[in-house]
Amino acid sequence: MNKFRHGGNIYNSQGAAENFLDFSANINPLGPSEKVLQALQENLRGVVNYPDANATELKNAISMRYKIPAENLILLNGAAEFFYLYFQVLRPRKVLIPVPTFSEYERAARAAGSEVEYFFLREEDNFQLDTEKILQQKCDCIILGRPNNPTGNLISVAEVKKISELVPTVLDESFIDFLKIESAKSFAGKNLVVVQSLTKIFALPGLRLGFAVAEKNLAEKFNAAKDVWNVNFLAQKAGVAALTDEKFLTDTRNWLEVEKKFFVEGLKNLPVKIFAPTVNFVLLKVSTEKIAEKILNQLRAEKILLRSCENFVGLDGRFLRSAIRSREENILLLDALRKIFQDW
Amino acid sequence: MNKFRHGGNIYNSQGAAENFLDFSANINPLGPSEKVLQALQENLRGVVNYPDANATELKNAISMRYKIPAENLILLNGAAEFFYLYFQVLRPRKVLIPVPTFSEYERAARAAGSEVEYFFLREEDNFQLDTEKILQQKCDCIILGRPNNPTGNLISVAEVKKISELVPTVLDESFIDFLKIESAKSFAGKNLVVVQSLTKIFALPGLRLGFAVAEKNLAEKFNAAKDVWNVNFLAQKAGVAALTDEKFLTDTRNWLEVEKKFFVEGLKNLPVKIFAPTVNFVLLKVSTEKIAEKILNQLRAEKILLRSCENFVGLDGRFLRSAIRSREENILLLDALRKIFQDW
Repeated sequence: MNKFRHGGNIYNSQGAAENFLDFSANINPLGPSEKVLQALQENLRGVVNYPDANATELKNAISMRYKIPAENLILLNGAAEFFYLYFQVLRPRKVLIPVPTFSEYERAARAAGSEVEYFFLREEDNFQLDTEKILQQKCDCIILGRPNNPTGNLISVAEVKKISELVPTVLDESFIDFLKIESAKSFAGKNLVVVQSLTKIFALPGLRLGFAVAEKNLAEKFNAAKDVWNVNFLAQKAGVAALTDEKFLTDTRNWLEVEKKFFVEGLKNLPVKIFAPTVNFVLLKVSTEKIAEKILNQLRAEKILLRSCENFVGLDGRFLRSAIRSREENILLLDALRKIFQDW
Repeated sequence: MNKFRHGGNIYNSQGAAENFLDFSANINPLGPSEKVLQALQENLRGVVNYPDANATELKNAISMRYKIPAENLILLNGAAEFFYLYFQVLRPRKVLIPVPTFSEYERAARAAGSEVEYFFLREEDNFQLDTEKILQQKCDCIILGRPNNPTGNLISVAEVKKISELVPTVLDESFIDFLKIESAKSFAGKNLVVVQSLTKIFALPGLRLGFAVAEKNLAEKFNAAKDVWNVNFLAQKAGVAALTDEKFLTDTRNWLEVEKKFFVEGLKNLPVKIFAPTVNFVLLKVSTEKIAEKILNQLRAEKILLRSCENFVGLDGRFLRSAIRSREENILLLDALRKIFQDW
């Protein structure tokens, strides 16, 4: 079992993409939008030129949408790039990571020689973070997901502020745009860096695109530690097209509000424990690892992928993570699950 | 003057690409090939999925073409990414860089806190590296271009071996495929890491693609220090299409052999000093900075870009670098240059 294996792996052993219905990666089923696909189409031949090293258009689009000055931005070849950059540049001695969570935090910290300490979120608390308790731990850096993946828990901006006032904090808001709630990005400062993926919400994980927000001098330091062309030309173009499409975001939030309820309702009739989702994924628990395995295998035979959580530190093989997708796709999954439990 | 500014910047202050005939970036004018463009076209909608984290197809294609075991490979979001990775991971105290050369070496070294010492190549020697002399310098790491950019000098594999036996060496062979000569890649080992861009030869700088070859344990260390999706899905697909296209490489080498001669012959009638090119770019020198400036400005007015070398450490504003392009484009540039000198 590889601790750093991820969902979204639709490739076979020869590296060819297979035609899975992929509930194992948390990608917006409404995307990529026609506008984004059109931008890619129109700019395909532009790959013959270097990307804009200043990424002026993309920076402007991010600045405009999120009201963040360009000087505070670090543009990323996917949000995951940032964790490596952060640890390599700042080299905190001891990093505290509430688990279960996205494993790249730990992988990146260890790669830079940082010591990693887990802070175990408890199932009894529905994996909710206890701010008081975590602040009793000694560490040089805390990494938090908002919402946290795969549990879906969402801490408040007030809690983020409280924590980051005392400990340097990296906040991962990669799923924040699925909700219409306040972001902590505008509070980024000397002790708080916020990172956001643009590939989940805009359904472009293959292209890689993300950004981080940091205090100006810190942003300069991060920007100096990566090459100037790290965001490819097509990702820049797709990003601009996506970020200026207000309707797509509204549609996405409307879809999620409706579909989250529908999906959870559908799950309620099945013998699974549901951890209330906040964004476009749900953490589930079945009673034994054997059942989970059977579910994963039978779904795979029907070309449906679910994410096993057995390699998340703090979880085990009884936990599964499912994306929330379109109505039609959700019905396919729910029907398949129903059938598996019936045939038991 | 920004020491780390590059050629290939076709973008205006608003970030829009302008329609330049770009001799400032050293991109193969035969590409991207129809096969590569077709692969991009066919896979455009695949950006909705994560890239293959194992990059199996791309690794196989690189392994096959260059006879390098997959376990020795580090796949890159452009060759430039490697220098940052190398210095962040190994943190050599003192890095020796023969100059003039590609400025990302220095930028990456400094970002990781390494001390940079220049080894000045001399114009009197046509910027040829003196292996004996450089080995008299004390340092923890040497970075060499083969051929070196912007001078075009090509050291032998024997010299690379000699140097890397004594000092850890990073060898940049980003332009090597423009020639049918032996690569040092198969000699990569504990003390020699070789990096190669795939975007110059295949004309895909906008997509970002490169790889490095290192001793197995070292490769593992580098691979652990970057996220697993750093090479985007389209770059992987384009790379596979490009690397299996033998004819394109043959055509490229044939084109360069003919066009290099034609271009140099054309330049010979002009009052410029020519440093004999090895690959698809030529270093030039005019008698004053004023003349160079006038050339750059007048060409720019005609929508032609040339690379000023004023920000290369070890050169000054009298030096210019020009790519070698298609016959038609080369004639355009040579005619424009002729006219500028005539109107003097």
